[in-house]
Parts: sequence; structure tokens; C-alpha cells
Amino acid sequence: MADPRFYDSTGPLSIAQVEQLASARLVAGDTQCTIQDVAPLDRATSGQLSFCDSPKFLVTLKQARATAVFVTEKMCPAVPVGVLALVCERPALAFARIATHLYPQAASIWPVDQPPVLGIAPTVRIGNGTIVAPGAFIGEGVEIGDGAVIGPGAVIGRGVQIGHGTRIAAQVTISHALIGDNCIIHPGARIGQDGFGYVNGPKGHYKIPQLGRVIIQDNVEIGANAAIDRGALADTVIGEGTKIDNLVQIAHNNHIGRHCIIVSQVGLSGSSTIEDFVVLGGQVGVADHLKIGKAAFVAGKAGVTRNLEGGRVYGGFPAKPVEHWRREVAALSRLGKASRTKTEAGND
Amino acid sequence: MADPRFYDSTGPLSIAQVEQLASARLVAGDTQCTIQDVAPLDRATSGQLSFCDSPKFLVTLKQARATAVFVTEKMCPAVPVGVLALVCERPALAFARIATHLYPQAASIWPVDQPPVLGIAPTVRIGNGTIVAPGAFIGEGVEIGDGAVIGPGAVIGRGVQIGHGTRIAAQVTISHALIGDNCIIHPGARIGQDGFGYVNGPKGHYKIPQLGRVIIQDNVEIGANAAIDRGALADTVIGEGTKIDNLVQIAHNNHIGRHCIIVSQVGLSGSSTIEDFVVLGGQVGVADHLKIGKAAFVAGKAGVTRNLEGGRVYGGFPAKPVEHWRREVAALSRLGKASRTKTEAGND
Amino acid sequence: MADPRFYDSTGPLSIAQVEQLASARLVAGDTQCTIQDVAPLDRATSGQLSFCDSPKFLVTLKQARATAVFVTEKMCPAVPVGVLALVCERPALAFARIATHLYPQAASIWPVDQPPVLGIAPTVRIGNGTIVAPGAFIGEGVEIGDGAVIGPGAVIGRGVQIGHGTRIAAQVTISHALIGDNCIIHPGARIGQDGFGYVNGPKGHYKIPQLGRVIIQDNVEIGANAAIDRGALADTVIGEGTKIDNLVQIAHNNHIGRHCIIVSQVGLSGSSTIEDFVVLGGQVGVADHLKIGKAAFVAGKAGVTRNLEGGRVYGGFPAKPVEHWRREVAALSRLGKASRTKTEAGND
Repeated sequence: MADPRFYDSTGPLSIAQVEQLASARLVAGDTQCTIQDVAPLDRATSGQLSFCDSPKFLVTLKQARATAVFVTEKMCPAVPVGVLALVCERPALAFARIATHLYPQAASIWPVDQPPVLGIAPTVRIGNGTIVAPGAFIGEGVEIGDGAVIGPGAVIGRGVQIGHGTRIAAQVTISHALIGDNCIIHPGARIGQDGFGYVNGPKGHYKIPQLGRVIIQDNVEIGANAAIDRGALADTVIGEGTKIDNLVQIAHNNHIGRHCIIVSQVGLSGSSTIEDFVVLGGQVGVADHLKIGKAAFVAGKAGVTRNLEGGRVYGGFPAKPVEHWRREVAALSRLGKASRTKTEAGND
Repeated sequence: MADPRFYDSTGPLSIAQVEQLASARLVAGDTQCTIQDVAPLDRATSGQLSFCDSPKFLVTLKQARATAVFVTEKMCPAVPVGVLALVCERPALAFARIATHLYPQAASIWPVDQPPVLGIAPTVRIGNGTIVAPGAFIGEGVEIGDGAVIGPGAVIGRGVQIGHGTRIAAQVTISHALIGDNCIIHPGARIGQDGFGYVNGPKGHYKIPQLGRVIIQDNVEIGANAAIDRGALADTVIGEGTKIDNLVQIAHNNHIGRHCIIVSQVGLSGSSTIEDFVVLGGQVGVADHLKIGKAAFVAGKAGVTRNLEGGRVYGGFPAKPVEHWRREVAALSRLGKASRTKTEAGND
Repeated sequence: MADPRFYDSTGPLSIAQVEQLASARLVAGDTQCTIQDVAPLDRATSGQLSFCDSPKFLVTLKQARATAVFVTEKMCPAVPVGVLALVCERPALAFARIATHLYPQAASIWPVDQPPVLGIAPTVRIGNGTIVAPGAFIGEGVEIGDGAVIGPGAVIGRGVQIGHGTRIAAQVTISHALIGDNCIIHPGARIGQDGFGYVNGPKGHYKIPQLGRVIIQDNVEIGANAAIDRGALADTVIGEGTKIDNLVQIAHNNHIGRHCIIVSQVGLSGSSTIEDFVVLGGQVGVADHLKIGKAAFVAGKAGVTRNLEGGRVYGGFPAKPVEHWRREVAALSRLGKASRTKTEAGND
């Protein structure tokens, strides 16, 4: 799964190595298999390793096509025939350990033993009329289209692709990302760094290697000092024509549709789907694994804790249809005033 | 209007060119006029083009002194004698198109065909005792006073002025800005990038070129990774002695008074006026086009949705006088407790 | 108190100089003493100057062991024998003035008259296998352990210590900080800049020199564009294994325990204590001088205004036990609906 433009694998691993590295136990099956890669349960296929750590995903587990999966003892019977069951106490931790072993340099923006050079690396391909300001770092294998601009001090990690006419301002960092045409990335934006993902380990929070990418489609604008993390195993996606303001946080695995407006200081937790033409007002927060429907409008400072239907206006925390929120605000205001009158009367 | 220190105009344009570029139609009048520049309706004068797209601004339109204005068919009668009426369906979009045509490089921090050089451009003027760290970029026409410090990696765009004794930390970016004496700008602050302004266009959000400036008066402090956008057509202003904390967002056209305190993660939408001695607590949000009066104190996390009188303390969302907010918090707490008692009684 | 790795003192000062610089008056005692340094009231000892500006701290004042303290006339009797009482109208301002005089370069990340050089300063000590990317600035006296990585454009101020295996991403700035082993600092993080501290002065807000440090223990992760201010007189501390997400603000003097999770866009005002294993959800705000107990979990967007006991889940603003908050949300929702019904009935 991990895009080889960005990630170097140390694989393959034998099943025996996997058992040992993850303190897991193979229940039965062909021990001659090898593991080339890791992948999410619903997408893992031949040569790939996955995991299931929650009864919520039992249906997916029963349809798994991975070569092997980490599961708890209890989940073992749900592993389909032809998939190797690797039993352990903490499948997510075991998985993270193998991912770390396969991709020990996952967090690096340059290939092992090829530290960055100032300026443009030898294998870079740059289009006509593109300006790369001095002080920029353009990593191995980067491709930049025609008429693009890379500002002073910008750091573009290995393998990144940047479309025609895209402007990268000063001191932007980009890694593990594919960026479309005619985008504008403002100063200090951070694109493609690790998402914020951990599992409990014996010595505290164990880092889950982040092996996905950021995909930014055409005509996207990203504000100053905004942060867009790359996907954990899949991708973080920003749809065509979407405009993102300063200091916005887009966590890993979010899918943002086309022509959305994401105002300053909005924060999106991981793995939500924001459909086309959605507007999120300033300082809105969105919890993880939610869906906001097409052309929904969420007023500033709202906190979205549930899925929102498209085509409506929302506000408040927890976010609700704006007319409900307004009624609550008015009702609470009356309640506050009434309590004052009561208190004053009580003082008489 | 656009300050030639920062913006190169491709003008002038003939009225016929304007008609064609914007798909507008001149109702009547002198077609020999030329358009040199764009400006807001209330300030546009001879040689300047403006627009009116809302009945709200009809009074202003009737007093317009621009050479030409984009208006809808319906607004046409309100255009004063001596001002050319250019009729179109979407005046704001037409205006944005002409502004883009006049200033195609509005977003650039260097003059066309003069990409930045590492270090200090030839036309820079630097005062006595000023230190420019290596790795900084000081663009064409920049002026820096005496005893200033420019940190490693700082990027100062063309034409920027920086006063005496001002300290610019590492990796700050500044463009389209005039900065006073004895200011402190902390690492990663972003000053002068594009504001977040779009109009609806046939292919999605159409970017309104941002042609204003940031004016920072003396003794201002700006926190790490804060973002201050330049004005759209006018200026974003930070008054003397005002202190702005880390990660604050100041959108375009805000006017902040003197000796204000703006605590971390505050977000100001566009075009508000914050008078002198105002305090905004951490994470406060302020909607657009509001006025917060002198010495108002807004408690942390409040959301300001209406004008606030000076000299009082406010809190909550929507922000209100703090004693009202406290009463509401207390009333809601009682209500919550009562509902518990009721439920428990119901369970008996 | 100020760590000489980071701060150069112009001291000592005679008591007469202190009197003059601060417009204070020595009540009685040995005028031959000298002042070497400034320190907080509870920690100041021989050679150090402190202040007391509030009756709240009278108990501490009575136990003071400083050489001298600024106090108001009224507080004078509480100054213990052997401590020089320097009487003035505004003790905090007087203290800030002397601190500024002793440390005029407190805000600088390099020694006076030793501006940074591109690359690695002569006195730097770097371990085996450590990679310093080109374009980085490593200041005088910096020590970096084995197997560390310093990314392109990173700026490491004088005296900073960085442990083994720690990865500093591109364009990070670090000053006045000691950083442990195996930490990960993401792009654009700002560590060690001035805290946000002022006292009222005759010409507006007077800056209190920030003379503390940032201490980051082992295995800490700090997100992209996060900001961690150094302590005012003491230290800002991030405990072992704590993970901090993008765009988080940690103000001066906060003490964060071990293995905490601080999600994106959280803001901590100054001087709070966050105990081990605490989780703060996205966009949480924490007021100053609070304590959040061990393993407390604060849901996203909550506003913490009081101390929170450990081991419980909290939510809302003001933050309260989550079950209380949920009841309030439900009660308010019912109230809103009831008001609608009433209005509709009234319309009949």
C-alpha cells in the first residue's frame, strides 16, 4: 500500500519473523508465506498483513483477503480460510510494530542515506517557466509542472508531485503529497507530516507509522500556517477548488470534497468525510469519523459531534440545525434573566 | 489605491477593454476614459473602477466619485451623473476579474522577473547597527531602520518597511507591510499574505486579488506562528503597543487599536474594529464587520457575534455581559441537576 | 536563576543602582549588597532580587530569603529581617525593569556580538550518526546526541541540548530549551520563544523579560506549527512520552506530566499543572494556574476554568463531569423545543 515514491520497505518478512517481532502466534497454515506490506483490513490483499482489534469489524474480518491478520484469541474463529491468523493480545500494537519494522524511515522526507542537498536534487524534474527561489530544498524524485513557483526556504520532500501553475510560498514544507494544478499554498503551511496516531504500548503511547499520503486536487488554496497531516494507511484528500484558510488543522484520513470553504482555525479530527460545497466557519471543530453532507453550512465556533445532513445550516455545540440552536440560545437567555429576577425578588 | 511599493499594475485599461474582460455593458457616457486602478466604492475617485452588488450600499453608490462602477441592471438608476455604469450580472465577480487583470502578480512577494536572491537585494536600505542573519531574504526596495534584527531564514518581501529597533525572529515571513519601531515579531509569524476572499464564479470560488497592506505601528509584539493577512483593498492595522500572542489569526481589513492584548488562538474574521485597550482572551472568536469598544474585556473562548460596548466584561457564546453569561451558566446547571432528580424520581 | 547557557547577565548591580533604575527607595539595611540576579519570591536567595505585589503572597513574603524585594509601602512590615525592602508604587514593574536591565538580550537566540552563522557554530558538539541538513543553523554551545536528525532550515539557538535519536523536522525553531532522547518535533514547531507576559507601565504594556527554559523529556512528540513558550522565571515542562498535536499552544510555566495526549489546537494559558496520562481533546482551552488531575479526560472543545480531579471524563464550557454536561445539553434541547411549541401555540 505504501507509495514507493515516499516510503522504502525493508520487507519482505517471513511469517516466523512476524511472529517473533510481534510476539504473536500463528494458529495454523502455510508458514512459507511472506509479508511484503501492511494494509487496512478492508483493502489488504495477497502479501499484505492487517489486523482486527474490535468486534465492530468482525464483518470486515470475515471478508478479509489479506495474507495474514493479527487477531485476539477470541476473534480467531472469524478469520476466513486462506488467511493466516496471528493471535496476540493487542493486535493494533502488533500491527504497529510490524509496520515500524517494515518502514523504519516512514517519518523521513528523504531516502535513507540520501540526506537533502540545498537546492534541487539531481533526479528532480521541473517544467518550463517554473521558478525555484534560492534557499528552497527540492528532494529526490520530485516533479514540478510548468509555470510553478517555489518560494524561498520551501522544503519539498522526496517524490512529491506539484502541478502546473501552483504557487508554493516561502517556508512551506511538503512531503508525502501529490498536489494538483493552480494551487496556492501560503507561507508556513505544513503538508504531509505524520498524523497523530498511537496505540497503547507497554511503555506508553506507541507510535503508529503513518504510511499514507496527502492528495490535493486542482485550484486548492491552503492558508498560512495551516497543517494537513498525511493519511495513516490511506490518504488525506482535499477536493478541487476547495479553499482552506490560515491555521486550519486537517488530521489524517479526512476526505474533503470539492469547492468547500474551510475558514480559519477550523480543526478536523481524523477520518471524516466533508462533501462538496460545505462551508465550515471559523474555529469550527469536527469530531472523527463523521460525515457532513453536501452544501451544509456550519456557523463559526460550532462543534460537530454527529453526522450532518447536507443542504442545511448548523450552529452551536453540539452542532444542530441553526434554528434549534437559536431557540436554545434565546431560551437560555430568558432562563438567565428569570433567575436574576427571582434572586432579586428573594432579596426583598 | 494599490501601493506601488508592493504591486505592479498592468493598466491602464480602456472602457472597451473593461467591458470585454468582464462581460459588462456600458450604459452610456464617455468611452474615452481609462481605468488605472480599482478601489472600494466609498473611496474610488478619478481613473478608478469600483462596484456595487448589494442594495445595502445604494447610499454609497449615489455618492460615488469613481470613473466607472459595475452594477446590476436594477441598480443602474442610482449611479450618479458623471460616473460610468457598467452593467453586468455579478458586479463583484466582474470587479475581481478586472482587479486580477490589472494585478496578475498581486500574490507575489517579488517584482515580476526579479526572483529573490539569497541575502540582501541590491536596492535594500539598512540602518546602522542592524543585524541581518545569514539565510534571510530581503527583497527589492526594502527599508530597515537602525538597530533592527532580522533572524535566520526570515523572508521579507519587496518594498516592506521595518522601523528602528524592531526584532524579526527566525523564519518569519513579511510582505506588503509597513512595520513600526521597536516591534517584536516571533518565529514563524506570517504577516501580509493574501486575505481569504472569494466571489462565486462559474467554475467555483473566484479569488479576489488582495491589494491592501498590513500596517503595524510601534511597540507591537506578534506571537509565534500568528497570521496577519493584508487588507483586500484597504489595510489591516495593528495599533501602537498592542500585543498579540501565538497562533492568533487576524484576517483582512481588521483595525486593531492601541495597547490591546490579544491572547493565543484568538481568531478575528475580516473588517472588524477593535478599539484601544481591548483585551481578547484565549481562543476568542470575533465575527466579521463588528466593533468592540474601548477597553472591553472579552473572556477566553467567547464568541463575539455582535458589536460590544466599551468598558465592560463579556463572556460566552454568543458573547454577552459576563454577569448575564454567569447567570445562564448557573441556571443551566440547575436545570441539568433538576432533570437528573426528576429522572431518578421517575425510576423509583 | 537564569541559565547561563541561554542568558548573559550584565550584573551585578549595587543597591543604589537598583534604587535608581527602578525609582524605588531602600527602607533600611546594608547598602553594600549587590544584586546578581532576579528570581521568584519563593525561590530567591542570596544575591537575588524579587518582588511582592499582592497581599495574596504575604505568607511567602514573610519567609523570603532574597537579598532584596520590591514591595509597596504597605507591605513593608512583612519583609523579614535580613531582606532589604525596596519600596515603590509598582513592585512588578520595578522588578521587570531590573530584569530588563540585567538581561537586555533575553529575547536573543544568540550571544551578543555573535550573530549566527549558516550551518554549525564552532562550539557545537554533535554525536555519532547525527545528520544536520544544509540550511540549518546550530548556535554556539549547542549539544546534540547520537543518531539525531536536524532538518533543513531548522534554527537551534545557543546552548540548546538535544538528546539521542531525536528528530527535528524542517523549519523548526528551538531556543532556551533542553530536549530529551527520541523526541519527534514536526515542521514549523516553535519551542522556547518568549512567553506572553506584561505589566502595566506608564507608556502601556511593559514587557517582562522571559528568563526561563523549556524542558522536554524523552519520547515526546510535538506537532506541526505548535508553539511552546519558555518559562518566565521558571521552566515550561513537557513530561516523558507526552504527545502534542499540531497547532497546540503551551504558554509559559505550564507543567505537563508524562504520557499525556494533547490534541490539535488545544490552548493552555500559563502556569497550569497537567498531571500524568491526561487527555485533552481538540480545541480544549485551559485557563491559567489550574491543576488537571492524573488520567483526567477532557472532551474536545471544552473550556477548563477550574481545577479538575483526576480519573474522570469532562466536557463543556465551563468544563464539568461529562454526565453533567450531557444532562445540561439535553435539558437545554428540551427547553428550546418547548419554547418553539409555546410560540407556535401562541400564534394560534
